Amino acid sequence: MPKPHKNSAAKDIVRLLAGAAEALIVSHTAPDGDTLGSALALAWTLEARGTAVVCFAADKAPANLRFLPGLERIVHTPPPTPPLVIFIDCADAARAGFRPELPPGGTTINIDHHVSNDFFADWNYVDTKAAATGEIMYGLLRRLGPIRDARTALCLYTAIVTDTGRFSFGNTTARSLRIAAALRPYVDVAELNETIYERRSLAQVRLLERALARLTFTADDRVAFVPLSVEDYAAAGAELNMSESVINYIRAIQGVEAAVLLKEAAPGLIRVSMRSNGAADVNRVAGRFQGGGHRRAAGCVCRGELGPVTEEVLRALKEEMDSGRDN
Amino acid sequence: MPKPHKNSAAKDIVRLLAGAAEALIVSHTAPDGDTLGSALALAWTLEARGTAVVCFAADKAPANLRFLPGLERIVHTPPPTPPLVIFIDCADAARAGFRPELPPGGTTINIDHHVSNDFFADWNYVDTKAAATGEIMYGLLRRLGPIRDARTALCLYTAIVTDTGRFSFGNTTARSLRIAAALRPYVDVAELNETIYERRSLAQVRLLERALARLTFTADDRVAFVPLSVEDYAAAGAELNMSESVINYIRAIQGVEAAVLLKEAAPGLIRVSMRSNGAADVNRVAGRFQGGGHRRAAGCVCRGELGPVTEEVLRALKEEMDSGRDN
Repeated sequence: MPKPHKNSAAKDIVRLLAGAAEALIVSHTAPDGDTLGSALALAWTLEARGTAVVCFAADKAPANLRFLPGLERIVHTPPPTPPLVIFIDCADAARAGFRPELPPGGTTINIDHHVSNDFFADWNYVDTKAAATGEIMYGLLRRLGPIRDARTALCLYTAIVTDTGRFSFGNTTARSLRIAAALRPYVDVAELNETIYERRSLAQVRLLERALARLTFTADDRVAFVPLSVEDYAAAGAELNMSESVINYIRAIQGVEAAVLLKEAAPGLIRVSMRSNGAADVNRVAGRFQGGGHRRAAGCVCRGELGPVTEEVLRALKEEMDSGRDN
Repeated sequence: MPKPHKNSAAKDIVRLLAGAAEALIVSHTAPDGDTLGSALALAWTLEARGTAVVCFAADKAPANLRFLPGLERIVHTPPPTPPLVIFIDCADAARAGFRPELPPGGTTINIDHHVSNDFFADWNYVDTKAAATGEIMYGLLRRLGPIRDARTALCLYTAIVTDTGRFSFGNTTARSLRIAAALRPYVDVAELNETIYERRSLAQVRLLERALARLTFTADDRVAFVPLSVEDYAAAGAELNMSESVINYIRAIQGVEAAVLLKEAAPGLIRVSMRSNGAADVNRVAGRFQGGGHRRAAGCVCRGELGPVTEEVLRALKEEMDSGRDN
C-alpha cells in the first residue's frame, strides 16, 4: 500500500534526529553540492551532540566539491545499517544507489525538495518550494540552536549556492537569500565561489579552444554544433567529462535555439549532448536515438563515424524544430 | 581647502532628494550595473514623487545592461544643470566625465561606496562597507517608503548582483543578501542573470577563440597572457570592450597567479588589463606605466608596438612577482 504523501512535523523529525545514538546519512548517486552539503551539515551537527554518524554516497564527489569539510569521511561501500537512516535530497529510494537493511525497530527519514518525491520513508519531510534541500536542513538544524559552526555553515551555504546556480536560477527565493545572509558571517564566499566555479584546468581551456574552432551553425544559425574527435580530446589532454562547460558555453550564444555537442568517446562510438533554450524539445530528438532527458537537456549514444552521426542527429533536430513550428 | 571626509546624515540626504523640483543624476564614465542601476532606481523613485529628473552618463551602457528599465532615457551629452546634481558611484568628480555648472545656490550630492572617495560634493554619503552603491541607494530609498515598484527593484537588484559578481566576490555581505531577499519578490532573477551573464554575441565567441589561440604562459606558468591585435578584433567582429570576458576566463586557469590582456586599440596604442589572484600586486605594475587600479585588478595604456609592449609589461610583472617573494 503506498504511503500517503504527507509530511511529518518538523519537530518530530528533529526529535528523531537529535535523539539518535547512531545514524547513517545517505546522499544520492552522482552526488552534487546539495546532497553532499546537506548531509555533511547534518553529520557535523549530530556528531557535536554525541551521535555516532556514518555518511554514505554510492559515487565519489566531483573534483570542485572536494573542499567540503568532512567529505573525506563519506564512505562509498554500503556500511552496516544502524537503527536510523536519513536519506538526503533523494526523490525516491532508488536514488540512494543502495538499499539499507534496517535492524528490527529501525526507522528511515526522507528529507528532500524534489517535486517528484514519492514519500518512500517512514518519516518524510519534503518541501518542494525550497530551492535546495540545504534550505530545509537549515530550518531543521536551526531548531537545535544557532548555526555558528563554520564547517556546518559552509556545507549549507554550498548546498544552496550550487542548487541555485549562485542565486541565479528561477528557484532562488527570498528565503534562499535570507538563509545565505544568516550563514554569510561564517563563510568565505570569495574562496567558495572561486573553488566551485572559477578553476579551469588547462585541458578544459584547450578543449574549449578546439571546440570553438570546430563550432558551426546551421538551420538559419538557430542551431550551433561542435563535433569533437578522439584526437581533439587527446590533443587537449582532456577527458570526456570535461565537455559540460563546452556545451554550456555554446548554448548561450545569442540567437542559438539548440546546441549539440558530439563527442567521439571511442572510434565508432559518439556521445551526443543537446541543449535547447526551450523552443525545441531535444528530449524527443534524443528519443529517436534511444536516448532521453528533459525538454531543454537530453543526450543519446550513437554508433558510427563522427561525420555521418553529426549529419543524422542534426537532420532529426531540424525535423523536430520544423514540426514544432507547425503547432 | 579640502573638505573634511565626513558623511552627512542619511535623513539630510533623503530630505534634499525628496524635496527637489528638478534633479540631474550622474553616473560614472564606462558605466557598469551599479552606477546605472542605482541612478535609475533613484530616478524612478524621485519621478514618482514629482521631481523632474534627467539622467546623464558620458558613455553608453554595455549591451548586457540594455534591459535596465529607463536606460533609454539616459542622455550622453551634458544637459543644462539644475540646482541639484547627484553623483552616483563616483569616487571623485572626474569620474563623471563632465563638470556640471551649477546655478547659484545649487547643490551637489555624492553617493558612493569606493574606499578612494574624496568627498568632493557639498553633501557626501559614502559607505565603504557596502558591496555596491545599490545597497546604499536601497537604504536611502527605503526611508521614502517600501520598495514595491518592479522597475526600481530590478535596477537595485542589478546594481548589487553585478558589483558582487552574483554574490560571489568577497565584498558580498549579509546585508547584500538581505537586501536581495527583500527585492527578490519583484525581480525575475532567472531572466536577469541569463541576460547579464549568459548571452554571448558571436563576436565575443570568436574573440575568445582567437584569444585562446594566442594564450601563452610564462614565469613557470604562473603568468598567462594574451596579446590581441587590431586585426584580431576586426576578424572576430569584436569591440574593444568585449575583452572583459577574455581576461576573466584566463585568470581562472589553475595555477595562474596573474593574467595579462594586451589590447591593440589602434596601431601603436596598447590597452593593458591585468588580474591577479592576490599574490602579485598588479596595481604596482600598472603604476610603472602611469596606470592604476587595485591590487587584484589594474590597467594601463602604453604606446608602442604590441610585441615590445607585451615584453615590457611582462618584465615589469615578473619583477614585481619576484620582489614580492623576497618579502
